[in-house]
Amino acid sequence: MPIADKLKELGIELPPAPAAAANYVPYVLEGGLLFVAGQVPLGPDGKLHYVGKVGADADEQQGYQSARLCALNALAQINAALGSLDKVKRVLSLRGFVNCTPTFTNQPEVINGASDLLVEVFGEQGRHARAAVGSNALPRGVMTEVEVLVAVV
Amino acid sequence: MPIADKLKELGIELPPAPAAAANYVPYVLEGGLLFVAGQVPLGPDGKLHYVGKVGADADEQQGYQSARLCALNALAQINAALGSLDKVKRVLSLRGFVNCTPTFTNQPEVINGASDLLVEVFGEQGRHARAAVGSNALPRGVMTEVEVLVAVV
Amino acid sequence: MPIADKLKELGIELPPAPAAAANYVPYVLEGGLLFVAGQVPLGPDGKLHYVGKVGADADEQQGYQSARLCALNALAQINAALGSLDKVKRVLSLRGFVNCTPTFTNQPEVINGASDLLVEVFGEQGRHARAAVGSNALPRGVMTEVEVLVAVV
Repeated sequence: MPIADKLKELGIELPPAPAAAANYVPYVLEGGLLFVAGQVPLGPDGKLHYVGKVGADADEQQGYQSARLCALNALAQINAALGSLDKVKRVLSLRGFVNCTPTFTNQPEVINGASDLLVEVFGEQGRHARAAVGSNALPRGVMTEVEVLVAVV
Repeated sequence: MPIADKLKELGIELPPAPAAAANYVPYVLEGGLLFVAGQVPLGPDGKLHYVGKVGADADEQQGYQSARLCALNALAQINAALGSLDKVKRVLSLRGFVNCTPTFTNQPEVINGASDLLVEVFGEQGRHARAAVGSNALPRGVMTEVEVLVAVV
Repeated sequence: MPIADKLKELGIELPPAPAAAANYVPYVLEGGLLFVAGQVPLGPDGKLHYVGKVGADADEQQGYQSARLCALNALAQINAALGSLDKVKRVLSLRGFVNCTPTFTNQPEVINGASDLLVEVFGEQGRHARAAVGSNALPRGVMTEVEVLVAVV
């Protein structure tokens, strides 16, 4: 099934690919590898939807939704880079940073928000190696930042 | 010398490769690159052996042992992925996160626990580019998390 | 224009490539990819020039200069690895860690110090995917640590 149909089935609409927030580019494609810059939970309205520290201002479930929105933006970047999500051969790796208190320890459950989306959309090819870690501070105070590396057909 | 003999010589026994703690896979092999997911200090008994913050609950030496155990688990993943550690062409890069207090500054010495093991086992081919950084919080409160990227013959 | 001339035009002098601070190597070149180890703001005098937490001991502008010095050291490593900066095909990705207070949220502006330098030197080929995140503690208390991945011609 083309990924575009899969997205429709899942009720997922790709947002516009966010512009880079500073002097870099949202993705680099080279030698069959697509490097997607760290994505933040920017909504299609151009506003940051999940700001705050997990464990203090926000709970795990909000963190999960934040990570899911980061991954949705990564999908938008991949689509912008390749013209079609069908050109994804494999999601290779994902790194998720969780803006949290020093005592919060469920980073894996938060970053599942990103991983779950990629597996829903790509199936087996969406399953990736991953690191989930805490961070004391993220850009603009967002709850999560997610980096994705993809192999391209 | 086959790496299996080298391990015997060093008195190192490979633990079972830990399962992924969430919705991802422990490794992805693609295009000659093996991406190993972030490893934590899980013992062969299935329990986390090094929990706490370096600089508060734990000292540098415990952090070092934690990083070494992370790297041992990475070896188990590499062995599970490739069938043999002899198929490692080069350890390319390693990223080590140290769960620590804001005033702890010896992350390099802690992450040497991982680097030393890889160099003991693989020799020159085990020498890698590396980043060692602090983190305010890691999954389940572990002292260290270590990501490894390997080139495969 | 050869990059060496470009550096002269910009008034930039490459420092000596810093030695690795622990049991790893400053770079690994394999399969057309050059992995540069995390660089810190070490000056050509062998001293760390930017130590402290952005948002407390230091402001954004000092963080920016710290990131720029990290990237300058990355250039020195790339030059040492390849013999010439002209062999850089593309800067693929950059990861910048900012040692900061929990309330500091301008990591992108700080890491622009590194990104700006790479774009000044390499032009379009210097534009990279990027992640900028906060860290509660970095090696030796440095303000920034920067990892770079480069594709080689």
